[in-house]
Amino acid sequence: MGYPDGLRLTVDAYLEELRFSDDAITGGLEEAMRYSLLAGGKRIRPVLALATARAIRRDEADFLPFAAAVELIHTYSLIHDDLPAMDDDDLRRGRPTCHVAFGEDVAILAGDGLYAEAFRHVLEHQTGEPRDILRALGELAAATGVNGMVGGQYLDVHEAAPDGADGLRRLHALKTGRLIGASVECVLLLAGQDEAATLHYRRYANELGVLFQIVDDILDVTESEDVLGKPQGSDERHGKRTYVSEFGLDGARALAADSVANAREALAEAAPRGASELEQITHFIYTRTN
Amino acid sequence: MGYPDGLRLTVDAYLEELRFSDDAITGGLEEAMRYSLLAGGKRIRPVLALATARAIRRDEADFLPFAAAVELIHTYSLIHDDLPAMDDDDLRRGRPTCHVAFGEDVAILAGDGLYAEAFRHVLEHQTGEPRDILRALGELAAATGVNGMVGGQYLDVHEAAPDGADGLRRLHALKTGRLIGASVECVLLLAGQDEAATLHYRRYANELGVLFQIVDDILDVTESEDVLGKPQGSDERHGKRTYVSEFGLDGARALAADSVANAREALAEAAPRGASELEQITHFIYTRTN
Repeated sequence: MGYPDGLRLTVDAYLEELRFSDDAITGGLEEAMRYSLLAGGKRIRPVLALATARAIRRDEADFLPFAAAVELIHTYSLIHDDLPAMDDDDLRRGRPTCHVAFGEDVAILAGDGLYAEAFRHVLEHQTGEPRDILRALGELAAATGVNGMVGGQYLDVHEAAPDGADGLRRLHALKTGRLIGASVECVLLLAGQDEAATLHYRRYANELGVLFQIVDDILDVTESEDVLGKPQGSDERHGKRTYVSEFGLDGARALAADSVANAREALAEAAPRGASELEQITHFIYTRTN
Repeated sequence: MGYPDGLRLTVDAYLEELRFSDDAITGGLEEAMRYSLLAGGKRIRPVLALATARAIRRDEADFLPFAAAVELIHTYSLIHDDLPAMDDDDLRRGRPTCHVAFGEDVAILAGDGLYAEAFRHVLEHQTGEPRDILRALGELAAATGVNGMVGGQYLDVHEAAPDGADGLRRLHALKTGRLIGASVECVLLLAGQDEAATLHYRRYANELGVLFQIVDDILDVTESEDVLGKPQGSDERHGKRTYVSEFGLDGARALAADSVANAREALAEAAPRGASELEQITHFIYTRTN
């Protein structure tokens, strides 16, 4: 089972065309933003958004502005996470991180700018009922704030999550889970679907976020630097608690198998007529090697 | 002529009640956010927003969620501007800056979190027609992105603005002017006013942003550390171009006098029946000493 590369190419082509600066004087800032945004990758979050549009039998092109915004926000989070005061990582996808390439001041602002431009892009380009756009933006803001991505990163760098498996799950539910979940859920909101229709999709998306993180932690200890595009074993060197440190490698693999089964079950209930691209992404997240 | 302290007290009371974290585990992040948010100050931007509501004969209480969001965003910009990689300031309003009090990692995330929570707060609490809320949010995002606040800060720290007075004006129009302008303009958008009605208000708000910055630059060289709550002459030490470095102290004072006259003229056209709180704020910004 492959990855929905057609959707990924659509996302890549759309991101490539994006410009943020209305004036050449801020071109240097835009260069840093595009350096990180166009560094490649599987584009899992925006592809998830477009795959969700297909699953509900809607034209994915209608959701590209939102999908792109999610990738802008993901890129912003990577830039800030890599900063010297945070994880202090020099390499990302095999290239120097934003602050190494452009300086720490520009990297902080590139992250700040990507977040603002993500909202601006949705507000200027996303079509739909105004009420639905507001609901989707509300979920996007919540998923990326104190009770989402930023709060999760705080728990991570400040080691503020409670001990044990529950604390680890809550950390990752905020840090990575909510934005992955929002990538699915916001498309349903934009499409005007009601609570009942989104229930199983939300369960699917939450499980997918868990699966993503378990596999990420496994890859950090099993794959080489060449494959990962960043130093192997960096979680352990940073003293980070992971699914592997908590449950051992075999335990983490068993959790991943449970998680993918849960995700597939939820998806089957969400989309009884099938959702081949979402099934592909699920399989990819489970079996990926980088 | 005084400052509209009634509106300021309304803003302060509203900000004091705000909570961001749904879960105690992210309480440490919220503490850093509230430390900077509740450090006092004149609350010029949210007070401007509420004063604009009064000028168009609307109940200011209806615009408090938006007004608060602007102050959250302003606070986020101060936290990031103070970071070691940016202006490296240890004092702000007479207290240790956020990164000195909580560490650089938490300060970066406190800024990130305040920005996200600003949007979330508007999306969850601001009343109005959905279409009008979207227009206001679009302006708020644009005013704080690459073509606004973040772009202006880039020009400032990276010394990327063109030489001369024009470059200086463009820098400050982005860095401080657009958010001050948005504090006025977004209230008109939320109130459903059309382009024609907002024209003179926009001219007023833009001029107020210019005035604010000229006076800020003058105060940096004329007022003591005790009055400013931060080291005197810090612009010069940072090698920053200011209205004083560009035009001299007398020249900057003359520009301020021109600017306040322009602002008052625009306001008189915007609000022919008078707008006493906006007149007070204009006077305050011109004559303030810190």
